[in-house]
Amino acid sequence: MKNKTVITLMTDFGVVDGFVGVMKGVILQIAPDSRMIDVTHDIPPFSITSAAFLNEWSFGYFPVGSVHLCLVDPGVGTDRRILITETCGHIFVAPDNGLLTPIFERPEPVRIINAVNQRYWMDKISHTFHGRDIFAPLAAHIASGVAIDEMGEEINDPLKMSFKQPVVAADSIECRVCHIDRFGNLITNLDQPTFLQWIKDNNLNQDDIIVQSHNYSIDGITQAYGIKNQGDMLAVFDGYDRLEIAINGGSASHITGLGFDAPVYIRIA
Amino acid sequence: MKNKTVITLMTDFGVVDGFVGVMKGVILQIAPDSRMIDVTHDIPPFSITSAAFLNEWSFGYFPVGSVHLCLVDPGVGTDRRILITETCGHIFVAPDNGLLTPIFERPEPVRIINAVNQRYWMDKISHTFHGRDIFAPLAAHIASGVAIDEMGEEINDPLKMSFKQPVVAADSIECRVCHIDRFGNLITNLDQPTFLQWIKDNNLNQDDIIVQSHNYSIDGITQAYGIKNQGDMLAVFDGYDRLEIAINGGSASHITGLGFDAPVYIRIA
Amino acid sequence: MKNKTVITLMTDFGVVDGFVGVMKGVILQIAPDSRMIDVTHDIPPFSITSAAFLNEWSFGYFPVGSVHLCLVDPGVGTDRRILITETCGHIFVAPDNGLLTPIFERPEPVRIINAVNQRYWMDKISHTFHGRDIFAPLAAHIASGVAIDEMGEEINDPLKMSFKQPVVAADSIECRVCHIDRFGNLITNLDQPTFLQWIKDNNLNQDDIIVQSHNYSIDGITQAYGIKNQGDMLAVFDGYDRLEIAINGGSASHITGLGFDAPVYIRIA
Repeated sequence: MKNKTVITLMTDFGVVDGFVGVMKGVILQIAPDSRMIDVTHDIPPFSITSAAFLNEWSFGYFPVGSVHLCLVDPGVGTDRRILITETCGHIFVAPDNGLLTPIFERPEPVRIINAVNQRYWMDKISHTFHGRDIFAPLAAHIASGVAIDEMGEEINDPLKMSFKQPVVAADSIECRVCHIDRFGNLITNLDQPTFLQWIKDNNLNQDDIIVQSHNYSIDGITQAYGIKNQGDMLAVFDGYDRLEIAINGGSASHITGLGFDAPVYIRIA
Repeated sequence: MKNKTVITLMTDFGVVDGFVGVMKGVILQIAPDSRMIDVTHDIPPFSITSAAFLNEWSFGYFPVGSVHLCLVDPGVGTDRRILITETCGHIFVAPDNGLLTPIFERPEPVRIINAVNQRYWMDKISHTFHGRDIFAPLAAHIASGVAIDEMGEEINDPLKMSFKQPVVAADSIECRVCHIDRFGNLITNLDQPTFLQWIKDNNLNQDDIIVQSHNYSIDGITQAYGIKNQGDMLAVFDGYDRLEIAINGGSASHITGLGFDAPVYIRIA
Repeated sequence: MKNKTVITLMTDFGVVDGFVGVMKGVILQIAPDSRMIDVTHDIPPFSITSAAFLNEWSFGYFPVGSVHLCLVDPGVGTDRRILITETCGHIFVAPDNGLLTPIFERPEPVRIINAVNQRYWMDKISHTFHGRDIFAPLAAHIASGVAIDEMGEEINDPLKMSFKQPVVAADSIECRVCHIDRFGNLITNLDQPTFLQWIKDNNLNQDDIIVQSHNYSIDGITQAYGIKNQGDMLAVFDGYDRLEIAINGGSASHITGLGFDAPVYIRIA
C-alpha cells in the first residue's frame, strides 16, 4: 500500500513552538496513512552543515522508498529553489542551499527536480514557514503516489557546499570535530575506511597510533567505552562510523573544552 | 474507519518524565488505531495563555474530525470542570480554565459538554495526573466513536480569560509580544488582517510604516527573513499570520532583550 | 495482527543527535506496522536508577503484549549481556546492568533470555551503538512474531542493583527524593500503600502527620496542588503513586534547593 510510505522529518525548528506538529497535520490531510518519524528537530538553528551530516548518515537506516524532509532553510521566502532529489531508492525534499551536498556526491545516479509546480503546494503560502506550506505538502503528495516529475523540471546545477575533509599525509591524519552529541562525545570527520586504509598503507595496528588534540593525547583506538576506567579518555569508531573522542561515563566536550572544528591529529606512536 | 482518528496532544508536561508516554499508552489501550500527533509538550509550565494561542493557531491544520488534547491544568485535582468542546468539526478536551477562550469566541457554533460521566474515566483517579486518568481516556473514547453527549451535560458558561488585543488608533497600532519562538523571533498579537485594514484605512503601503519597540525602529514590512542582510532586524508577517520582529540569521530576543508582553508600535513613517 | 505490536522506547540518548530516529528506521524495516511510542529519551545520561524507576512505573499503562526497549547502557560494546525479559504479558529488552531490577523483584513469574543469537542482530555491529544494531532489531523481531526462546538461552542470574527503600519505624518514616520532574516536584521513594499501612498501624489520619526535609515542614497530606494557595508548599501522593513535595504553581526544587537523594521524614504531628 503506497500510502504507508515512511516520511522522516529533520529540521532546526525545535519542538517547542508547534511548527513540527502542524507540518504533520498538513501531511496527514494529504497522506493519512503515511508513517512519520522524527530524525531530529534540534539541528542547531541555521546549521546546514549539521543537517547535511546527520541526513547522509541516517537516511539509509530507513526503508527504501522513504521520503526525507530535510529543513534547515534560512533562505525561506526568498527565490532559493526547492528540490526533490531521488537516489538509492530514497527521495529527499530540501531547500537548494547545499544541505544535500553529501547526497549529490555519492556514486549512485541522482535525479533532481526543481519543485515549481504550485499544484502540490498549499493554497496560501506564508513568507516564513514553507515547511508547512510547501515542503510538507510535497512530501505528502510523494508519499501518496504522485510522481516527482509532475512537481517540476529536472535540473543539474544544485547548490553545493564544500565540507572540510580529513587531510591524510604519509605519517599523520588531520581531522576536525564536526559534531558534538548529547553525551559530549566529540565526533570528527574521519571515517573508518579512510583510517583503515592509512593504517594498512603504513603497516600499522590500531594500537600503534596516538590521537592528539590540544594538549590531550590518547593511545590507540578503543573497541568500546566501557573497556576503559570511568573518567578515562578514549578514541573509538562510533555509531556514525567516525573517529570519536569520548570519556567513559563523562563528557569529553565539558572536560576538554574542545568544540566544533577543533583539529584532531592521528600520528604514529 | 473511525478508529484512525487523529488525536493531537499539547501539554506543559515536557517529554522528560514519561508523562506523555503513559498518556499515549492509555490511549492505545482504548483506541488502538488512533493517530497521535504531538503539537508541543513544552508550553511554559502553567501558561494557559500560551496554550490558548498555540491551540487556536494549530488545530485547523489537522483533519476535520481530529480530537485535540489541550492540557495546561494547574487546577488538577480541584473541582474545576473538564470540558469537551465541539466546533468546526474538531473536538477539544481541556480543563475549564480559559484555555479554550479563543475557540469559544469564534463565530462558528460551539457545543460544550461538562465531562462528569466517570464511565469514560480510568477506574483509579490520581490527585495530580488527570491527563492520564481522565483526559487521555476521554480523547480515546471519542476517537473510538463514543458520542460526546454520553460523556456529560451540555453547559454554556465555560470560564473565559481576557487576552490583550492590539490597540488600533487612527495613526498607530499598539501591540504586544505574546510568544517567543525557538529562533528568538518576537511574535506579537497583531494579526495580518487587522494590519491590512488599518493600512487601507490610512491609504498606506506596507513600506510607509515603521515598527518601533524600546529604542529599536524598523522601516516597513519585509517579505522574508533572507531579503535582509545577515544580522539585520526586520518585521514580517509570519507563519502564525502575526507581526513578528526577527533578525536574519540571529535571535531578536537575545539581541534586543525584548520579552513577553513588550509593547510594539506601528506608526506612519 | 501481530505486527501492530506496541514498542515503547526509553533511553538516555536525547533527541538531538538522530540516534532515536535511526533506531526507529531499523525497527520499521523489520516490523513495518509496529506502533512505536516514546516514553522518554531524556533519562539523565548513564542513570540506570532513573530508568529503572520510570520503566517500572510506566510499562503497565501500555497494552499487554507490548515490547519495551529500555536503554541506558554505559557498558555498550563490552561483554555485558543483553536480556529479553518476559513478565505480566510484557516483554523488556535491556542490557544486563540492573535496569530491570524492579521488574525482577515483582511477585509474578519472570522468564529471562540472554539474547546471544546473532541471527536477530544487524549484520554489522558497531562498538558504541548497540541500540541501533542489536536492541532495536531484537524488539522489532519480537514485535513481528519471533519467539523469544529463539533468541538465546534462558538464564536465572541477571545483575540486580539495590535501590534505597523507605525506612519505616514505629513513629516515623524516612524516605528519599528519587526523581525531580519537569515542574520541579520532588518525588520520593515512598509509595502510597506503605504510607497507608503505617497510618493505619498508628491509628492516624492523613492530617495527623508532618512531612519534614531540611528546615521545611509541611502539615498533612494534600489532595491536590490547587487546594493550596499559589506558592504554598504541600505534600501529595502523585501520578507515580509516590509521596511528592510540591509548590502550587511553582518549583519545589528551585525554591527549597533540595535535590536527588535528599532525606524526607514523615512524623506524627
